[in-house]
Amino acid sequence: MRILILGGDGYLGWPTAMRFSARGHEVAIVDNFSRRRWHIQNSTDSLTPIRSLADRIEAWRELTGNEIHSYVGSMEDGEFVERVVAEVLPEAIVHYAEQPSAPYSMRSRQAAVETQYTNVIGTLNLLFAIRDRVPDCQLVKLGTMGEYGTPNIDIEEGFIEIEHRGRRDTLPFPKMPGSLYHASKVHDSHNIHFACRVWGLRSTDLNQGVVYGIETEESAQDERLITRFDYDEYFGTVLNRFCVQAVIGHPLTVYGEGGQTRGFLNIRDTLQCVELAVLNPPQLGEYRVFNQFTEQFSVSELAELVRRSAAELGMKVEVRSYPNPRIEAERHYYNAANTKLRDLGLEPHLLGEELVRSMLRLIARYRDRVIERAILPTTQWKPGELAGEITAAS
Amino acid sequence: MRILILGGDGYLGWPTAMRFSARGHEVAIVDNFSRRRWHIQNSTDSLTPIRSLADRIEAWRELTGNEIHSYVGSMEDGEFVERVVAEVLPEAIVHYAEQPSAPYSMRSRQAAVETQYTNVIGTLNLLFAIRDRVPDCQLVKLGTMGEYGTPNIDIEEGFIEIEHRGRRDTLPFPKMPGSLYHASKVHDSHNIHFACRVWGLRSTDLNQGVVYGIETEESAQDERLITRFDYDEYFGTVLNRFCVQAVIGHPLTVYGEGGQTRGFLNIRDTLQCVELAVLNPPQLGEYRVFNQFTEQFSVSELAELVRRSAAELGMKVEVRSYPNPRIEAERHYYNAANTKLRDLGLEPHLLGEELVRSMLRLIARYRDRVIERAILPTTQWKPGELAGEITAAS
Repeated sequence: MRILILGGDGYLGWPTAMRFSARGHEVAIVDNFSRRRWHIQNSTDSLTPIRSLADRIEAWRELTGNEIHSYVGSMEDGEFVERVVAEVLPEAIVHYAEQPSAPYSMRSRQAAVETQYTNVIGTLNLLFAIRDRVPDCQLVKLGTMGEYGTPNIDIEEGFIEIEHRGRRDTLPFPKMPGSLYHASKVHDSHNIHFACRVWGLRSTDLNQGVVYGIETEESAQDERLITRFDYDEYFGTVLNRFCVQAVIGHPLTVYGEGGQTRGFLNIRDTLQCVELAVLNPPQLGEYRVFNQFTEQFSVSELAELVRRSAAELGMKVEVRSYPNPRIEAERHYYNAANTKLRDLGLEPHLLGEELVRSMLRLIARYRDRVIERAILPTTQWKPGELAGEITAAS
Repeated sequence: MRILILGGDGYLGWPTAMRFSARGHEVAIVDNFSRRRWHIQNSTDSLTPIRSLADRIEAWRELTGNEIHSYVGSMEDGEFVERVVAEVLPEAIVHYAEQPSAPYSMRSRQAAVETQYTNVIGTLNLLFAIRDRVPDCQLVKLGTMGEYGTPNIDIEEGFIEIEHRGRRDTLPFPKMPGSLYHASKVHDSHNIHFACRVWGLRSTDLNQGVVYGIETEESAQDERLITRFDYDEYFGTVLNRFCVQAVIGHPLTVYGEGGQTRGFLNIRDTLQCVELAVLNPPQLGEYRVFNQFTEQFSVSELAELVRRSAAELGMKVEVRSYPNPRIEAERHYYNAANTKLRDLGLEPHLLGEELVRSMLRLIARYRDRVIERAILPTTQWKPGELAGEITAAS
């Protein structure tokens, strides 16, 4: 199959590209290296020493004989997007090419505008390119579980049947995004749903939970193939950050009470889910939503898991509560459906101490590369105000 | 009160500015004249011969002694928006400054991107300016009833209580926008709701129905004060278009079956509603939604009303079905709540033959200005395909 991976130089994009290539698909990548640029602007970096995209592609060719094509350009450039789509003629497009950080979107007006512009306009350009060039192509779009927020009812997969004053309809599940980044994904969802309803496109919107992990089957074969691993305030996800903190002896930075519950999944399961979506496309005109996570945890449960796992490796880890920079409920109901990907055959890699220990060991290899400045949060959701009780600050 | 009207040169913006000024408020206007520019690009124009903004302001000063301040610039320019807000220090901001046309948003990728960029980024810039400069200010934002689409359940005002698997929550009403313009308003709603929840701003989102009418109390005093009146495919709303068609002897352009039902209101009631919202502000942190329309009609009911009203003036009007350029249900359930503005004191001007006849008479004064080229729709929701049965084409 001809598959185009947008954001194919990223944490998930690069491993996704290798996985499809390894399975014999024809893979092309688009990236504008904005993640690398944001890190340079923040004086931070990936923990893992990632290679340039050209070096990665060369190493992959050397190892497997497979060619991955690459296009350098931005999704905001509608003519570029249309040209690439017209040239590749993909049968499936996997779209990771967005600004993916909630704290980054909240740091300033400029960053919020950049986030919504990049994400919303980029996806809009893509929808037109698909409509005009490859209307049968499936769009697999990475959304986020954070689109839903934390409603007091069970979260369904994209749609909910509502009975109201004696009538019924199945409608999009109401969204309460918790940051301007999450809001940008809600906007994307509405635009994609529209394109499916009105233009007859087809799309799977993967509302992904928080991803953790480093290695995948393909990246483990050669250090030159390793994917990026972020642990900084902007691009590090919570479990990845905790593992780095454990290795360098920094207290685990639990925000407030740590009762925030979310869905999580292993990076290997991201690849499985994306592949399941690509290989089982929806009908033309269909917009389907899969909630892409395997388990739910609260932040304090994760901190405790990391503490226990690290202890067995002889690392003494302190869990500490920090003022919450976000405006969010720290205790709330949370129960989200995630059966659709299981029904397609997803076999989850569950989170346990052994997995955390393997992450800790890998991180320990690169501990000299850790930039301590990047650990503590500086961006507040509401400037001038820290939510939650201030219990400690290092 | 200090009131800032964004889009104050427009169809509703200019009459709103005059109304608040007439009642003794300190009024400032922002506009970048994009509506005038879009007309020039399309070789179309307002039916009414509107004056330049400077001439309008001068005529208003001459007539009333009241000064209306104006700022020329774009909402997309975040620094401009912040500078204006910091200088005016408004207690209320009425935000009309968006690209307001569904067909315009559907004509090309460029127009869709322009629409979502102008609307979403403009409102985002505004939210930051309010947060940073006038956090107590009320934002009165013009949304649209078209955000909801046509669900098979009653439409509530912004929020709906959902009972689901034995639990309850009140959540944003699910949205199914019918164009990329309507989608842009849905995006705005999510961003504004977020700003209220997280930053503690306050806003009234007026989900407005289709507006008709020309004159308001203030504009009727002097021809130099008349507001614009659009009847072209992009910026003309359905009843206004039908009235112009009746006057020039063009068949009324009913799309498809004409069973599309929507909420409607008189331009005078728009001004009443906006004033009620401004004078009865929500609490800080509150995001409230009012459905702003007074009556529901189907398109074919409106066509019939115009035909009957015109007949009494001796105009012979033909009602004709045209291929529907939109992708939309032509028969559907529609029942939307609109009690909140009534509870605040709205006294509707209802639609009847006398009102239509007064519109027809006013339009007849300017019939020589009608540009026939602008009457028939050219933009299709799904290029290459016309929805509905093709029953006639002139």
